[in-house]
Amino acid sequence: MSAYQIVLASASPRRRELLSQIGLTFCVRPSKKEERVESARPEKIVQELSAQKAEDIFAQVSQEAGRHLVIGADTIVVYDGQIMGKPKDEEDACRMLFLLQGKSHQVYTGVTGIWQEDSALPPERFTFYECTDVSFFPMSDAEIAAYVATGEPMDKAGAYGIQGRCAAHIAGIRGDYNNVVGLPVGRLYQQLREKGLL
Amino acid sequence: MSAYQIVLASASPRRRELLSQIGLTFCVRPSKKEERVESARPEKIVQELSAQKAEDIFAQVSQEAGRHLVIGADTIVVYDGQIMGKPKDEEDACRMLFLLQGKSHQVYTGVTGIWQEDSALPPERFTFYECTDVSFFPMSDAEIAAYVATGEPMDKAGAYGIQGRCAAHIAGIRGDYNNVVGLPVGRLYQQLREKGLL
Repeated sequence: MSAYQIVLASASPRRRELLSQIGLTFCVRPSKKEERVESARPEKIVQELSAQKAEDIFAQVSQEAGRHLVIGADTIVVYDGQIMGKPKDEEDACRMLFLLQGKSHQVYTGVTGIWQEDSALPPERFTFYECTDVSFFPMSDAEIAAYVATGEPMDKAGAYGIQGRCAAHIAGIRGDYNNVVGLPVGRLYQQLREKGLL
Repeated sequence: MSAYQIVLASASPRRRELLSQIGLTFCVRPSKKEERVESARPEKIVQELSAQKAEDIFAQVSQEAGRHLVIGADTIVVYDGQIMGKPKDEEDACRMLFLLQGKSHQVYTGVTGIWQEDSALPPERFTFYECTDVSFFPMSDAEIAAYVATGEPMDKAGAYGIQGRCAAHIAGIRGDYNNVVGLPVGRLYQQLREKGLL
């Protein structure tokens, strides 16, 4: 489908599933670089982190034969100005869910693509972000505890997986659903097509 | 989890997956009754059809031992006043996608629950509907043809699966995502909890 070997610079199984869902063939090379953020605004943070991950892996694959397109992504949850990454422990997960239940919050994902048409040419890049509003139904303390006990929240920004059991507690969204899962594949596909990468 | 044996009166594998996703245990007994609609308004049609399916299966299971809760659902896609069910053939699928691409439309799902606390008491019921707005990116004729060739559209109202390859062409939604997949499990879970059925 693509003249490029697509490389996903992320360890997230959800991002892998989403790229497969839209029919792309790719390999996975998670960036292990330490994340450093200069920005304070959510849309800047996710774009900056997605670019760091993509740059890190692009520097590695560009040494190898073939034409590569590296895709990096980063997702955060923002409620009332507070940025939520992955919970530290179960208590932290309960705290986050207690804040999110019964209200709306935002999910930001930043995406960066880096590719090089020819080794004689400089690499090209795009970076964008998507923001989705998510509304939770109210949750009782018992429901929060039961949900955290499933283990599902522990590796997820904001301590929930919209694509998992938490679906029972979601009233609705405004924006791209897959952006909440971790990768806005609609916008990404459009971007790749526009740049002639598919 | 429930004092009732939950019975899903639908053959849809997507509805089955969604009920499993929120952790419910249930069995499947699709209604084979011919659908008859009296209403013309989308929200009435889906509620009416969900009730017919649930009533059909409830009449069967209520003869059997145990306490049953039957869930019926029906989904339609509406664009500019036109109601779209499943496409008749590939040409029909292309026609529907050509209408939907580059614009917004509505997806309606009606849900009915029927249960009986005790065989001495009359059965109880709830029926509700959810509506979600879905926006498509523009699609070229080649993209429509390629998507139809995957076979994915053929068993789906409106000729697309938001949870499948079509994700590449979805700009965003407003409302419940799972309602578009075929069952608004968030609202359904809240309803079951409210009625003391969980």
